[in-house]
Amino acid sequence: MKIPPLICALLLLILSLNTIVEARIRHYRWEVKYEFKSPDCYRKLVITINGRTPGPTILAQKGDTIVVDLKNSLLTENVAIHWHGIRQIGTPWADGTEGVTQCPILPGDTFRYKFVVDRAGTYMYHAHYGMQREAGLYGSIRVAGEDEPFVYDYDRSIILNDWYHRSTYEQAAGLSSVPFVWVGDPQSLLIQGKGRFNCSTPGTAAGVCNATNPECSPYVFTVVPGKTYRLRIGSLTALAALSFEIEGHNLTVVEADGHYVEPFVVKNLYIYSGETYSVLVTANQDPTRNYWVVSKMVSRNNTTPNGLAIFNYYPNHPTRSPPTIPPSGPRWNDVEARVNQSLAIRSHPNYIHPVPQTSDRVIILLNTQNTINGFRKWSINNISFTLPHTPYLVSLKHNLLHTFDQTPPPDIINNYEGYDINIVQPNVNATSSNSLYRLKYNTTVDIILQNANMMDANNSETHPWHLHGHDFWVVGYGNGKFNVSEDPKRYNLVNPIMKNTVLVHPYGWTALRFVADNPGVWAFHCHIESHFYMGMGTVFEEGIEKVTKLPSSIMGCGDTKRFLQP
Amino acid sequence: MKIPPLICALLLLILSLNTIVEARIRHYRWEVKYEFKSPDCYRKLVITINGRTPGPTILAQKGDTIVVDLKNSLLTENVAIHWHGIRQIGTPWADGTEGVTQCPILPGDTFRYKFVVDRAGTYMYHAHYGMQREAGLYGSIRVAGEDEPFVYDYDRSIILNDWYHRSTYEQAAGLSSVPFVWVGDPQSLLIQGKGRFNCSTPGTAAGVCNATNPECSPYVFTVVPGKTYRLRIGSLTALAALSFEIEGHNLTVVEADGHYVEPFVVKNLYIYSGETYSVLVTANQDPTRNYWVVSKMVSRNNTTPNGLAIFNYYPNHPTRSPPTIPPSGPRWNDVEARVNQSLAIRSHPNYIHPVPQTSDRVIILLNTQNTINGFRKWSINNISFTLPHTPYLVSLKHNLLHTFDQTPPPDIINNYEGYDINIVQPNVNATSSNSLYRLKYNTTVDIILQNANMMDANNSETHPWHLHGHDFWVVGYGNGKFNVSEDPKRYNLVNPIMKNTVLVHPYGWTALRFVADNPGVWAFHCHIESHFYMGMGTVFEEGIEKVTKLPSSIMGCGDTKRFLQP
Repeated sequence: MKIPPLICALLLLILSLNTIVEARIRHYRWEVKYEFKSPDCYRKLVITINGRTPGPTILAQKGDTIVVDLKNSLLTENVAIHWHGIRQIGTPWADGTEGVTQCPILPGDTFRYKFVVDRAGTYMYHAHYGMQREAGLYGSIRVAGEDEPFVYDYDRSIILNDWYHRSTYEQAAGLSSVPFVWVGDPQSLLIQGKGRFNCSTPGTAAGVCNATNPECSPYVFTVVPGKTYRLRIGSLTALAALSFEIEGHNLTVVEADGHYVEPFVVKNLYIYSGETYSVLVTANQDPTRNYWVVSKMVSRNNTTPNGLAIFNYYPNHPTRSPPTIPPSGPRWNDVEARVNQSLAIRSHPNYIHPVPQTSDRVIILLNTQNTINGFRKWSINNISFTLPHTPYLVSLKHNLLHTFDQTPPPDIINNYEGYDINIVQPNVNATSSNSLYRLKYNTTVDIILQNANMMDANNSETHPWHLHGHDFWVVGYGNGKFNVSEDPKRYNLVNPIMKNTVLVHPYGWTALRFVADNPGVWAFHCHIESHFYMGMGTVFEEGIEKVTKLPSSIMGCGDTKRFLQP
Repeated sequence: MKIPPLICALLLLILSLNTIVEARIRHYRWEVKYEFKSPDCYRKLVITINGRTPGPTILAQKGDTIVVDLKNSLLTENVAIHWHGIRQIGTPWADGTEGVTQCPILPGDTFRYKFVVDRAGTYMYHAHYGMQREAGLYGSIRVAGEDEPFVYDYDRSIILNDWYHRSTYEQAAGLSSVPFVWVGDPQSLLIQGKGRFNCSTPGTAAGVCNATNPECSPYVFTVVPGKTYRLRIGSLTALAALSFEIEGHNLTVVEADGHYVEPFVVKNLYIYSGETYSVLVTANQDPTRNYWVVSKMVSRNNTTPNGLAIFNYYPNHPTRSPPTIPPSGPRWNDVEARVNQSLAIRSHPNYIHPVPQTSDRVIILLNTQNTINGFRKWSINNISFTLPHTPYLVSLKHNLLHTFDQTPPPDIINNYEGYDINIVQPNVNATSSNSLYRLKYNTTVDIILQNANMMDANNSETHPWHLHGHDFWVVGYGNGKFNVSEDPKRYNLVNPIMKNTVLVHPYGWTALRFVADNPGVWAFHCHIESHFYMGMGTVFEEGIEKVTKLPSSIMGCGDTKRFLQP
């Protein structure tokens, strides 16, 4: 059949208009509620989105506007969702951080999140209220772009997680108890929402664990022999630092937190809560069998069994077990290997965002564990962070300054010079506070995360710190105590990677630099759920005067009730 | 020492002023939070008030103003507290019924409940949001008066309860599932917050049950030989209808729901969720031993062990076990005995509130069980009640009428004449709705609660219906189908008791009458937590135009957010 040229042109026009329209607004309608699920064969209540955990993957093109109408169908519990890695330029009220950028969303209410994904890359979303993230409320965001410095045949997203059988309420109640009840090791590790708990574990209550439940069949990553896959991997563990590997296959790291990396090859990828990576993997091994995919908890001595999935060479049966014993992964305490991976991550030479060569302000954040009024806490410069119940964004924009502590936290702890990070410290002056750092708009700020010994002797943990509203340059890592005059001389100011989540390794320091050019109020915190709950975080304000009119939908709690004028 | 007369008079004046002041305002500061407790030896998260469950007893004099500043320290969950039996005359916004009279109280917020206790009697308070009551958020209100028609030496309050080990979230998720997961029998019965679960029960998870935990030592009611005790008993069970007895002692019933009863003597008192009674008990038995106090679940065939406490004759050791086997209590299915107790409860002759001899409107509420879109529900006149997320009180006062279904529910179901209550009915026309009944101010309304067969053959349950904002006269009970023309002729219009909670017995009907003279919006519902959750309730509005300016503290949710004007 021959189509007349005019009609043909019209059809093309309609098609292209459609494409433009579809590329601009991505509208999702989500309902969150509690449902019983068995992600690791053990039945428990989880928070689902439209019946699923992980929730739907958001697929978008760079520059698209994402609209999520989030209906809270939890019975008595509020909710808020953070769009992890999205900078929310011009929409600071859509960051989804309860207490910082919004009031929580009440049961029965529908809240509209609307924001632009302005950069290609691999991002995530998750609950940012209480410890709800652990209840299963999370998912992937994949923003496609053009002009990528690598090629692949297919694109896949997975999220790694750890999994607890006790509810978030129970965990939080324990953390807030005297004596302190630690959450302990997770019961299992999930790969894209699937894990496997041993139902024969002694002490397991009757009737809750079923090893034959299809919900806990292993995740299957099917590949066509010879093809190359871009695997986007995010971690949203509550606690676990992970090593990830695909038996017998090299992983080429090409992206970190939305930024292109100078490619490097690893057998296993270390990944921490809040981080995302893209790796390329080519199905170039013996195609007559399947292979193990393994996630393993590292950095803490632990009892959690490795998470397993199946790397399935088509047309082998997807559930056919590989003929080998799964790789056991690296030693949990091989800090050097993990530091080396951190050091290996540098910006791809063609995609360098030039880093300011000087900074206007240096803030040294000493990470310590403390006891405050008998409660076990984490502190930053002797301040254990608590969230206010009136969101900072509203308080600062509308001058409700009585709603939080107005004494700013210090840029450096008083006795920093004399502080020995290698021994247990009493830290008797620690207090709880919801004070924040106010940054001068458009200035360059250096943050030094300084690790130290915790309250147990000879122990210093790995903390993944996540900054909202920005990417930062990772300009340096070091062992031991940061030297204010010497260490900055060795900063990488040539090709540092930009990230939104970075590690501070045991007994070490990490230096990062960012420009305070995004008007709003932004959380900065350890992404380990229980650590943030215990006070390991702080908040930055910048350019609040440039924030436009706040939507009333973010209000309704705390002192914002004064605006209720019926 | 001799005190000069002037100073003496001044002192007396100060003392009497103090007394007056103390008698007028009773100010409580409460903090609710989750804590681990073991009320029946099984450790679980409960909601406490100031660290306790049951919470503090409110002690007041008739006419006092109660002020409760309620701080919500739950992590992510809202709360609301209902003052059960208090009519809230002039303060309909203080009734504490989420969705009806207020928005829920958010974490971090402090809500002020302020109301007058205008009548002496025995009342209770409890959470009225989701299924939180079951999590342990409840307590006693005792309002003293003068001029009582009985004498006693001491006054005591206890609350009976049942207790589940699964969380309220888990129970609610099961009730909202397809297929339906029923909550099942409670694991134990509590007497004033203490019960005993058999920790050796097969299937109990390791480490959560400890039979030697002092929190689950039995409740001890210590008495002095020869003295008479007024025992105020309330029931706030989630499910269980109870029989209560004190081994070897008669109970003289003297008060029901704040009204004086023509006294009658029982060996065991039947009591249902939402009811309160005062009984007199005299310590007139062999004082050298202790006696059992027993609560037993009736009305449903069940597996729940009886609750036990100790009636301790001073100076015997309070924990000394009685030498006898605890009384086994009445048969669970002795409906006649329970109906007979209902019939025995009449107003004390000196305290009769004259009942209007005619009514202006008759509403027949047919109680049925149904399946709606696959979900198991309870319905009233084929309407399964759902709560709106904007409180009716605000919607009606401020004309936000789009927030709930404007089609009023029917005063009688279409096919009432032809409806056979004795068999399983398909009830295919049932729907879910948040519509309400609007009553003409100051009119007299008759409500006929008509029971029927549920979805299981040969089964009709006992439902305790509780009315907010009013007492009603209980003018009649009957077996079988209510006869609209004949049965009203046999109403007791002479000395009916007034109550706020009344039963509809299996396959029976109950007629009650009240005057719609309390401006506000008032819930009327089955007090079984899971039944109300499944839709067994409705709401009455009356005199909304007479309600004075609503406090903005009850707003902040649903469509009340339109009043946010920063």
